Amino acid sequence: MEISDLQASLRQTYVERDAKRGRDATFRWLTEEVGELARALRTGDEDNLVHEFGDVFAWLASLANLTGVSLEDAVARYARGCPRCGASPCACDFR
Amino acid sequence: MEISDLQASLRQTYVERDAKRGRDATFRWLTEEVGELARALRTGDEDNLVHEFGDVFAWLASLANLTGVSLEDAVARYARGCPRCGASPCACDFR
Repeated sequence: MEISDLQASLRQTYVERDAKRGRDATFRWLTEEVGELARALRTGDEDNLVHEFGDVFAWLASLANLTGVSLEDAVARYARGCPRCGASPCACDFR
Repeated sequence: MEISDLQASLRQTYVERDAKRGRDATFRWLTEEVGELARALRTGDEDNLVHEFGDVFAWLASLANLTGVSLEDAVARYARGCPRCGASPCACDFR
């Protein structure tokens, strides 16, 4: 699935609701889902973990739709190795 | 760009470092980037906003790589309308 197609699908499904809710409340939803992802990592329920990754991704896309950002463009600098050192595997100092 | 290709590229570039760092520290990095996204929303710097969306996406993919989750599979239920009501635009009660 193309990143841009996924974002477009979420736009069609949710952008009116996202706009009505607004940026700040949509960001709050994103962080709520990040919290649920944290819990899924702790409990180790595989299905729930997959579910929460999907929710974080979807809310990130909703927030991108609200702010006019293309997730595909945003992540493009990671598509061919490390954007900092240019290597793959990354050869930067470990962090 | 395919979601799976992006995740594979990030795996090749970072998975050894991600594994060395571990799940919890990688999750911490994800939340740090979510915080930077919050600041970018506040300051309104467009280039920085795009940058931070990319960073959140990349760290989410790193965490998915560490936990063996396919982001493409995880988000698939959002590819054709709302997974709750089945409609697009979504017809669920507004939240």
